[in-house]
Amino acid sequence: MKYLIIGGVAGGATTAARLRRIDENSEIILFEKGDYISYANCGLPYYIGNVIKERGNLFLQTPISFGNRFNVEVRIKSEVIHIDSVQKKVKVCHLDTGKEYEEYYDKLVLSPGAEPIKPPIAGIDSPQIFTLRSVNDTDRIKKLVQSQFNTSKEAIIVGAGFIGLEMAENLHQLGFHITIIEKAPQVMTPLDLPMAVIVHDHLKNKNINLILNNGVSSFSHQHEQVTAHLENGESILGDLVILSIGVKPDIQLAKTSGLKIGNAGGIWVNEHLQTSEPDIYAVGDAIEFPHPVSGKSFCCYLAGPANKQARICADNLVNENQKSYQGSIATAIAKVFDLTVGATGLSEMNLKGCHIPYLTSITHPTSHAGYYPGAKPMSIKLNFAPANGKLLGAQVVGSEGADKRLDLLASVISNGGTIYDLIDLEHAYAPPYSSAKDPVSLAGYVAENILTQKVFPMQWDELESILSDKQKRNDYFMIDTRTVMEYKNGTISGSSNYPVDEIREWIEEIPSEKKIILFCAVGLRGYIASRILLQSGFKTVYNLSGGFKTYSLLGKYVIK
Amino acid sequence: MKYLIIGGVAGGATTAARLRRIDENSEIILFEKGDYISYANCGLPYYIGNVIKERGNLFLQTPISFGNRFNVEVRIKSEVIHIDSVQKKVKVCHLDTGKEYEEYYDKLVLSPGAEPIKPPIAGIDSPQIFTLRSVNDTDRIKKLVQSQFNTSKEAIIVGAGFIGLEMAENLHQLGFHITIIEKAPQVMTPLDLPMAVIVHDHLKNKNINLILNNGVSSFSHQHEQVTAHLENGESILGDLVILSIGVKPDIQLAKTSGLKIGNAGGIWVNEHLQTSEPDIYAVGDAIEFPHPVSGKSFCCYLAGPANKQARICADNLVNENQKSYQGSIATAIAKVFDLTVGATGLSEMNLKGCHIPYLTSITHPTSHAGYYPGAKPMSIKLNFAPANGKLLGAQVVGSEGADKRLDLLASVISNGGTIYDLIDLEHAYAPPYSSAKDPVSLAGYVAENILTQKVFPMQWDELESILSDKQKRNDYFMIDTRTVMEYKNGTISGSSNYPVDEIREWIEEIPSEKKIILFCAVGLRGYIASRILLQSGFKTVYNLSGGFKTYSLLGKYVIK
Repeated sequence: MKYLIIGGVAGGATTAARLRRIDENSEIILFEKGDYISYANCGLPYYIGNVIKERGNLFLQTPISFGNRFNVEVRIKSEVIHIDSVQKKVKVCHLDTGKEYEEYYDKLVLSPGAEPIKPPIAGIDSPQIFTLRSVNDTDRIKKLVQSQFNTSKEAIIVGAGFIGLEMAENLHQLGFHITIIEKAPQVMTPLDLPMAVIVHDHLKNKNINLILNNGVSSFSHQHEQVTAHLENGESILGDLVILSIGVKPDIQLAKTSGLKIGNAGGIWVNEHLQTSEPDIYAVGDAIEFPHPVSGKSFCCYLAGPANKQARICADNLVNENQKSYQGSIATAIAKVFDLTVGATGLSEMNLKGCHIPYLTSITHPTSHAGYYPGAKPMSIKLNFAPANGKLLGAQVVGSEGADKRLDLLASVISNGGTIYDLIDLEHAYAPPYSSAKDPVSLAGYVAENILTQKVFPMQWDELESILSDKQKRNDYFMIDTRTVMEYKNGTISGSSNYPVDEIREWIEEIPSEKKIILFCAVGLRGYIASRILLQSGFKTVYNLSGGFKTYSLLGKYVIK
Repeated sequence: MKYLIIGGVAGGATTAARLRRIDENSEIILFEKGDYISYANCGLPYYIGNVIKERGNLFLQTPISFGNRFNVEVRIKSEVIHIDSVQKKVKVCHLDTGKEYEEYYDKLVLSPGAEPIKPPIAGIDSPQIFTLRSVNDTDRIKKLVQSQFNTSKEAIIVGAGFIGLEMAENLHQLGFHITIIEKAPQVMTPLDLPMAVIVHDHLKNKNINLILNNGVSSFSHQHEQVTAHLENGESILGDLVILSIGVKPDIQLAKTSGLKIGNAGGIWVNEHLQTSEPDIYAVGDAIEFPHPVSGKSFCCYLAGPANKQARICADNLVNENQKSYQGSIATAIAKVFDLTVGATGLSEMNLKGCHIPYLTSITHPTSHAGYYPGAKPMSIKLNFAPANGKLLGAQVVGSEGADKRLDLLASVISNGGTIYDLIDLEHAYAPPYSSAKDPVSLAGYVAENILTQKVFPMQWDELESILSDKQKRNDYFMIDTRTVMEYKNGTISGSSNYPVDEIREWIEEIPSEKKIILFCAVGLRGYIASRILLQSGFKTVYNLSGGFKTYSLLGKYVIK
């Protein structure tokens, strides 16, 4: 049996290694158009930021070491330029010599990856404007940032996605002042707005110049500097620009070779990871696959799923499609300075796009028991189905242990579970690691209270629309249930203060003909007060979701 | 409706709080025989160790604050001494005055907790010998450790369970030299031996005197010091002794009141947490409940399950048993100096006791991508069913992120999942948090390879029995697949060195008539070499489970 594999990074190299382990006697040739295989894609920003000191550490394997261990013939600088699926052969171009040759296959695996999006705006080809995807990109950026600067160093990041923010952190660490330009009203679109504003606040505290709701209309280039001209007429001068607008699947070879391209613009594959040609398989960033929650195909640009696909693909190559890929719910995480920011499943934007109804809850627990030193703030947002509590999406922003909670939430979504499953999860508890009620359980409890109508959450935008409408406003009575001290230190304008621990005593004072809006710092005391009022004859009682913490951050970064 | 709740710590206080939130208008009285309610049980060792500086931080609520918030009548120093389930009343003794009175109930909740085991050995009542369960215990120990010592301070910990090791760390932190005495051949019995030895090694590196396979036969007391006389004739002198042999459910009241006690010695409850008297419910450490994996009843002394039970119990009290408790798989964790040590589900000892067949795998991944700085060693052991791969138990020892992996493993066991589910879990990956193949996925992959007979693991005790039997030994050929340098730095005596990357070249030299035992550092290279040999005509090829790392630690602490 002769296997050809096109692409030598995550998907391709992993497929080759697994293939050899289950089929010692086949011929395996791996083609890679670049100079390197099996390198640490996700480590590139950290090598630029000097967090990873040794360039050599980026390479998990060299072509030679990989070849020795797995008896795979690795051909670098070798671009496959055509696939003939009838004759079952490929045409290969050696990029150094330009020489072309053919190679036959029994089975073929495509792992071409994705490429950065570079919109056709004026000046985008300036030598100070970079994308970051390959080792060569990295080397070029590294060379520039290590050079001498006469004045203070200014970096412009265009696009506030995961890689953009990782680059912001790493360049900041090298002494650059950072401007981030983002067309959307928020960073990191997999996050919903009430979670994104926590990141906004953190970036501001790190002295990052964050420009939202604004795009770049053109670049101009002068004296080894670049000016980004913004849509609102402003301009920003920088020593380098990182373009991190996004990536798209590299489908050129697949397309010209007649393979089916899916609706999301990726290579179409079935559940066995076969393309429209049964002897050609595809894995990694270039494929599209239905999202297990929405059912809608999408391209998932993540290393974890690529590795999983590679193992399944290798097993299916040898053992006749015995395995099925289940799809990814796009669980993603990034370190953003001191924050850990992650999302899994569907965001509100996704849900609206798919016309899927949802409820949402926000909790602000601490990372471990509050009485044990070092507990850190954390925020968890759940999106879940009103009909049955099915968990549709979850987001976590925090530091210590935020990654742990995200993985647990992802496991429930992947299993098609509900918010009740969050309650049933068993957590390892000791004070350094968690609380007797883990943040994930707590999020589940709050969602259950919402779902079973023990509490009626009010979202920030609903409150905004009430507060901005004098007529409407008149129907509501707003209560801050925090202590007198907290109330005096700042509250939502127009609220009265009835601390939760005394609210039973003052209940006669609260106008029972009005709709009540309760809030506290994070939602717990508002919930307890909700329970008291709802069981004391008040008909309409709301609790502000995420409390004053969420509301005041939104006020800082969103509400005009 | 009138509810009485007996016991004001985790289970009782949580039941009362939830009860009030769903039933604003009932009467709720909480009896607690001690001076405090709702305190941080799990924080007590850390307050002694001065990690938690303020005594006040141990109290999540005071009787007054709790009463105010939840409109619950809290009666401390009040011991319920009898329950009359026919008349539906209890007899209460006020411990300060000795006055007794009666109180009627509609529904009653028992949350008496557990008490430390104190075996009847001579001298055990010395004032320098302590157990640690309550705030009063804590105050007594704190007072002693804060007093002046003339010589170096010596502490003896009897029993190397979770609390024993937490106390060892905290007293060590205060400058005590620590001796731990344990009757079993290992610390922390929820761990299997190959995992426990990692803890042994860590304790040794912290200069802890760890005495295993040895019990205390008596104590003697002289000049404010205690001597522990050991079963092997040795004796240890100490300034204080912490008895942490274990706890047992406090069932006295339940027993004398005629409630059913189960086979495991705890209060019997049904899935609604009702005792044998339908209007009496029970929660927390004092109840027993069937283990979801083994089906065998056991008492689970953990705060997480107690909190879950309390919420279910309150809901059932108000809404006629609408909820069922699913039982706990005893997911437990402890910080042991710089290590995080945790276990969930069934250990090998449990499995043997229940006659459940199992396979086992050990992996030694790093906590996050190796190329990103700060990756820490981690070890994961899985116990799983040979028939279908059902995950029966899991253990993790590491530092960063070990708690995260334990929670994920627990979620799979709780769901009745298999090692294949570990492979399907979707992990949030960025270099600071994980690897593209997360340690949990990796453990799943290794278990899958074992289950599908892609590799045949050999456990350390099997290897031991071969190496100690000259006749048997002759049938085997043992290969160290690590590099020449690693081999020269120490290997298993009698092994030949064929590094994995060259083994194909030397395959003719390997005696094909013998059974082959392969090993490497942690198991990966041995696995790759296994695959090569098994597909090259070798009939019997084993890979040493956990590699040289596990084997050499066992050699240090177990193998004589």
